Amino acid sequence: MKRVCFVLRVKQDLVEEYREAHDVWPEMRAALSEAGFRNYSLFMRPDGLIVGYFEAEDPQAALETLGKTEVNARWQKNMARFFSAGSGDLQKGGPEWLEEYFHLP
Amino acid sequence: MKRVCFVLRVKQDLVEEYREAHDVWPEMRAALSEAGFRNYSLFMRPDGLIVGYFEAEDPQAALETLGKTEVNARWQKNMARFFSAGSGDLQKGGPEWLEEYFHLP
Repeated sequence: MKRVCFVLRVKQDLVEEYREAHDVWPEMRAALSEAGFRNYSLFMRPDGLIVGYFEAEDPQAALETLGKTEVNARWQKNMARFFSAGSGDLQKGGPEWLEEYFHLP
Repeated sequence: MKRVCFVLRVKQDLVEEYREAHDVWPEMRAALSEAGFRNYSLFMRPDGLIVGYFEAEDPQAALETLGKTEVNARWQKNMARFFSAGSGDLQKGGPEWLEEYFHLP
């Protein structure tokens, strides 16, 4: 399993609304699992900084597989207005990907 | 297991030096494991933003246990100069802790 981390930003005045909207649809959760996302967490700082962490055998393949699903297109369309930079769509380069430099099992 | 995420900042002009210094001592790795840290990763953005992620049965207890070790005191003393805000010592409030709002196993 590879470990992946990204950051992105929600518009500060929409942070509360974003949190409430982030009750992820069961079909979106299923699409993530089917695409290979494991142990996927999203964390937030009150100013709208978001950190995502997930594990996948092949993170790039998982992103591509998810990106081809109809439910992901609907989800991203629904979420786009919350993001100040990029679309929040992991496929479209919205997030910044970080590099792992330490790991302890 | 609880999942924990924090962010902190390395001084931008010391990013390269910090990376090279971050070859964690075996005794520090052992102290982390003994304190209950599991699946602990650190990620970096080129500007010095650092994201930490770990899992622990009781994250607060793990931090407190680590904070009492002699090796941690030595490690933090060695690392303090790299951090622009706080000490980088997880016990002393340097990092900002984020709140998890989504999880997919």
